[in-house]
Amino acid sequence: METRDIDSLCVNTIRCLAIDMVEKAKSGHPGLPLGAAPMAYLLYTKIMNYNPKQPGWFNRDRFILSAGHGSAMLYSILHLTGYDLPLEELKRFRQWGSKTPGHPEYGLTPGVEVTTGPLGQGFANGVGMAIAERFLAAHFNKPDFPVIDHFIYSIVSDGDLMEGVSAEAASLAGHLRLSKLVYLYDNNKITIDGSTKISFTEDVGKRFEAYGWHTEHVLDANNLEELEAAIHKAKGNGEKPSLIIVDSHIGFGSPKQDTSAAHGEPLGLDAIKKTKEKLGWPLEPDFLIPEEALTHFRQAVDRGNKQMAAWQKLMDGYKKAYPELAAKFKMVMQNELPQNWEADLPTFAPQSGPIATRDACGKVMNSIAKNFEMLIGGSADLAASTKTDLKDGGDFSPENPGGRNIRYGIREHAMGSISNGINLHGGLIPFTGTFLVFSDYMRPAIRLAALMKAHVIFIFSHDSIALGEDGPTHQPISQLISLRAIPHLTVIRPADANETCAAWRWAMKHDGPVVIATSRQKLPVLDASLYPIYTDFSKGAYIMVDAENPEIILIGTGSEVSLILEAREKLLAQNIRARVVSMPSWEIFDNQPAEYRRHVLPLEIPKLSVEAASTHGWHKYVGEHGDVIGLERFGASAPSEVVMKNLGFSVENVVEFATRLISKK
Amino acid sequence: METRDIDSLCVNTIRCLAIDMVEKAKSGHPGLPLGAAPMAYLLYTKIMNYNPKQPGWFNRDRFILSAGHGSAMLYSILHLTGYDLPLEELKRFRQWGSKTPGHPEYGLTPGVEVTTGPLGQGFANGVGMAIAERFLAAHFNKPDFPVIDHFIYSIVSDGDLMEGVSAEAASLAGHLRLSKLVYLYDNNKITIDGSTKISFTEDVGKRFEAYGWHTEHVLDANNLEELEAAIHKAKGNGEKPSLIIVDSHIGFGSPKQDTSAAHGEPLGLDAIKKTKEKLGWPLEPDFLIPEEALTHFRQAVDRGNKQMAAWQKLMDGYKKAYPELAAKFKMVMQNELPQNWEADLPTFAPQSGPIATRDACGKVMNSIAKNFEMLIGGSADLAASTKTDLKDGGDFSPENPGGRNIRYGIREHAMGSISNGINLHGGLIPFTGTFLVFSDYMRPAIRLAALMKAHVIFIFSHDSIALGEDGPTHQPISQLISLRAIPHLTVIRPADANETCAAWRWAMKHDGPVVIATSRQKLPVLDASLYPIYTDFSKGAYIMVDAENPEIILIGTGSEVSLILEAREKLLAQNIRARVVSMPSWEIFDNQPAEYRRHVLPLEIPKLSVEAASTHGWHKYVGEHGDVIGLERFGASAPSEVVMKNLGFSVENVVEFATRLISKK
Repeated sequence: METRDIDSLCVNTIRCLAIDMVEKAKSGHPGLPLGAAPMAYLLYTKIMNYNPKQPGWFNRDRFILSAGHGSAMLYSILHLTGYDLPLEELKRFRQWGSKTPGHPEYGLTPGVEVTTGPLGQGFANGVGMAIAERFLAAHFNKPDFPVIDHFIYSIVSDGDLMEGVSAEAASLAGHLRLSKLVYLYDNNKITIDGSTKISFTEDVGKRFEAYGWHTEHVLDANNLEELEAAIHKAKGNGEKPSLIIVDSHIGFGSPKQDTSAAHGEPLGLDAIKKTKEKLGWPLEPDFLIPEEALTHFRQAVDRGNKQMAAWQKLMDGYKKAYPELAAKFKMVMQNELPQNWEADLPTFAPQSGPIATRDACGKVMNSIAKNFEMLIGGSADLAASTKTDLKDGGDFSPENPGGRNIRYGIREHAMGSISNGINLHGGLIPFTGTFLVFSDYMRPAIRLAALMKAHVIFIFSHDSIALGEDGPTHQPISQLISLRAIPHLTVIRPADANETCAAWRWAMKHDGPVVIATSRQKLPVLDASLYPIYTDFSKGAYIMVDAENPEIILIGTGSEVSLILEAREKLLAQNIRARVVSMPSWEIFDNQPAEYRRHVLPLEIPKLSVEAASTHGWHKYVGEHGDVIGLERFGASAPSEVVMKNLGFSVENVVEFATRLISKK
Repeated sequence: METRDIDSLCVNTIRCLAIDMVEKAKSGHPGLPLGAAPMAYLLYTKIMNYNPKQPGWFNRDRFILSAGHGSAMLYSILHLTGYDLPLEELKRFRQWGSKTPGHPEYGLTPGVEVTTGPLGQGFANGVGMAIAERFLAAHFNKPDFPVIDHFIYSIVSDGDLMEGVSAEAASLAGHLRLSKLVYLYDNNKITIDGSTKISFTEDVGKRFEAYGWHTEHVLDANNLEELEAAIHKAKGNGEKPSLIIVDSHIGFGSPKQDTSAAHGEPLGLDAIKKTKEKLGWPLEPDFLIPEEALTHFRQAVDRGNKQMAAWQKLMDGYKKAYPELAAKFKMVMQNELPQNWEADLPTFAPQSGPIATRDACGKVMNSIAKNFEMLIGGSADLAASTKTDLKDGGDFSPENPGGRNIRYGIREHAMGSISNGINLHGGLIPFTGTFLVFSDYMRPAIRLAALMKAHVIFIFSHDSIALGEDGPTHQPISQLISLRAIPHLTVIRPADANETCAAWRWAMKHDGPVVIATSRQKLPVLDASLYPIYTDFSKGAYIMVDAENPEIILIGTGSEVSLILEAREKLLAQNIRARVVSMPSWEIFDNQPAEYRRHVLPLEIPKLSVEAASTHGWHKYVGEHGDVIGLERFGASAPSEVVMKNLGFSVENVVEFATRLISKK
């Protein structure tokens, strides 16, 4: 059989598997697989280095299906090339408990590098992977030992390119000259609502050139030679990330070709029949995989084994030449923390005076970064405000690829998505920095970090109305509860410098995304020798100061803990016994045994929560007989102390609420 | 005095007022005002049509300071040109209760067209205003009567152009050829973290050309002639929106010029002295406004009166020539609904079979659109899925500027921000459409809609895990509570078609943003003759079916109301008496008198909430002795019924929870 023939056979195998999957599921997206199958085929059979039997091989090329709705295509090719994804799973597409959910899910299906579906995310994730690749290469590669040297490929759709997050990420990728990025734009000219002409007529190539990208234009997705040549040119440019615009046909070969009807629903049996006829495919059986095609695809295993063996050989030499570096590299590949990572964690003493938790956060981060070189990150143009600069870390740039401070520019959303990519690449723990109110801009990325359990540490400073004069546009109200509501996300709002340190310790060891919200304003340092901060922080909430037979429990987070400690003194002066509970993290507390939770917050004692944020969610802890001090309005522009006092965050107001609550009982 | 001299004097008046404001407030941003003052000066004295004494004049040119941190500049020029903003207010910059908050706030300060600060938003708001301008012009202008004919100007910063939302909006504005947009890019090459070189080296002009914009480049912000010529060329191009790249110097004239130190903190007295010396400005007194400058600025009043008088004359002729249209136009300018707007609202009967609330929503919208032509909007490429198409409304396009369906493309964030702009322009009520999970992409826009009380109706379909096979990437969990936590935002999740109708009725009359969350799946129509839907919906929560001495109260929203109605029957069969409460909106319910709230949800009866979303926030209603059925995990990919059942949304599970809760008591 001639090359052309086997190519067509293989491409059509992907196509027909995908449409059969969608048909069987009675749900899904046949349009992209039919049109983009040649791209996937080429990447997985002629371009990429990977090993289906070792999907975690560290130096593999990464592939991201940013247009995640084309999952049937991805699952098909993963099965065909020999990943641990049996045909049975393809037949269980979109069914409960299958490994083939509607959109690709990282951690569930071998070979799926990232969870995609919400458009634009995969595009930006890839930029993060390219940053990780370059950073790790700078750290570990040595002359003659390119132990890190791989590309990041992606198939992106119109939707990916319309989303703002990809625009942000593309601009940054061009700026950083991330030449290991090779993106194929599936230019099928159709979106759900119709032709792209109705909303998307920009000159995409010109835009990407303006960002500093190399662009290629392939006029026919089915022309494998042209496509392959374009990819090689892209890879070879060595200077710039590449976008290859590939003109394709959604629903190729089907009666619905070039219409939006091909996008997101099963073709139907009749159209499937016509499609298969058009493609010269047997009508029976469905899920047909010709032996020749399978054999051809499965060469990926042998090829992958050879590629890995060659790399392993390189590593053997590397180990001999650079034993220490190789040992370190091994730990990095296994995402292990160095033993001494906590060695320089600071402790804070009240006598050194009040300190904003953003400042404490900066000190703690830097103490960790000193011993753990794989902590990298940056802020969205707020390094000095969020205190997230790594001193002596250098800026990550084309000239300084080992730099650890990533200058994201004013691109919060891309910062989040890129950070997900950095972590998913493997080897690195990324952090981000911006104001808490701007977590809204990053929300889709944070949500996906949670869904993927990516180990990203999201630092948000200026965590309340106490930021003062910048006013309501910059003062977070709804953000804390909004983040707390995301499953698998841990939100921590430390009360002082010591809790900030404890928060970092927790976040570094946790296997998932963590938010740390820090204050702009200075806060008293709580005495760690008086209060059980370092022992009890890890319970999420704990009794900071107790009283015998307390009449009321004051619960606070962040800056409000100092406030309720003061209120407690005032109450004591009135002979009212109050327990003070610091509650840095709801999620951690909720995971404690019921007895502990009831011990800290017994049913029978009235409870008052104090947090300078939306009150939503607090009733779970204070109960219907308790009360909440919070905000059900936006903030105001005025000096910090004025805003706090006028909106109810004063010792007097806490005392008043507390006494009223006790008297009600 | 020569023209040049008075120009300089005026520009420096703005500059020095602004730096004095920041200094007095001990907080704020002097850098932008010093650099961009010539642009503001030119716009307000030589370019724009407006009337400081009638800031609401409908045909005024709009100005948006997208870089809202430069508020001191805006307040200065508003004061100088004669808006009702006394010098005293400038001296109270960033103080409690002043009209000069840290960032400009719509509705608070006369002349402030939009609340800005979160970057990129103002850019996109302007695109919305330009859409509104063109749409209204298409509706009301007649030959010789261009009653709507104005421009939208904005000063945008590096940050605005880095944000993804502006990329989305710019691409759409280019596509729509919104030639009334004239944006001045304050290209000062400095961001908070340093030179733009560290993160922003794209070719901005080329990028905007790729979007279909007209671009100009002014090499010196202080060259008023060059700047003016560029603006005139931009206005005159008649085909495209315009970006004028104006090279400027942050902190111009100060010792901190061209450094990020000039951006966001007071210059300090010493630097102020040096700046004033450099600008040839008297060192004393502060807040100096030379008489000549004031006289020159205040010509704006006379000019504005004349412009308005000319327009009024045009309107008089228009009224004579087109009395009916003029009457309609008057109502539109006053944001009034036509008397018959509710005339064709449908009612839904159970016997016509189950209907998804997204479908009901589409029908209701269309019935309103029939009588109220100023309802316009669109979806982010999900018109058919969200059912937000206005039948016979036509697509809004350069060829059809009266079209009422805006094809936003896959640009949720811009859709939200543009909709804010459409409403703030005046005259129109915009709606948006996407899946609930993608409300995350629009969140910064929704938040600002709430802060500005913009009348935007945000439709979110596919409102729960019941969307099924698309899986966890597309299934909302945290979104409802996240939206509910935004102050001033009303979130409605209707239980059926009739509640959907009631929701729209409420939303149309409400003066602020409303979210309506609709189901993908079909839901039984609840009998409006049996249940008090139309009478009690407006209370936010109401007793749908009661029982004598209820032993338990089942509370549901949206699709879960039918579920708890079924569960009630099952419980009744076990001789358990349950009250069923439909709770379409927390916010509306929370605004009811305490007696009503206690009547619906009495303290002493155990309560169980059922909502296929995060449980956060429900404890406020069910109390600590109540229980919640909800989700503290992400969803799953499988057919709708399977996902719902497996995750606890079945009659059996509700019955089990209910009986357990009763027995606990």
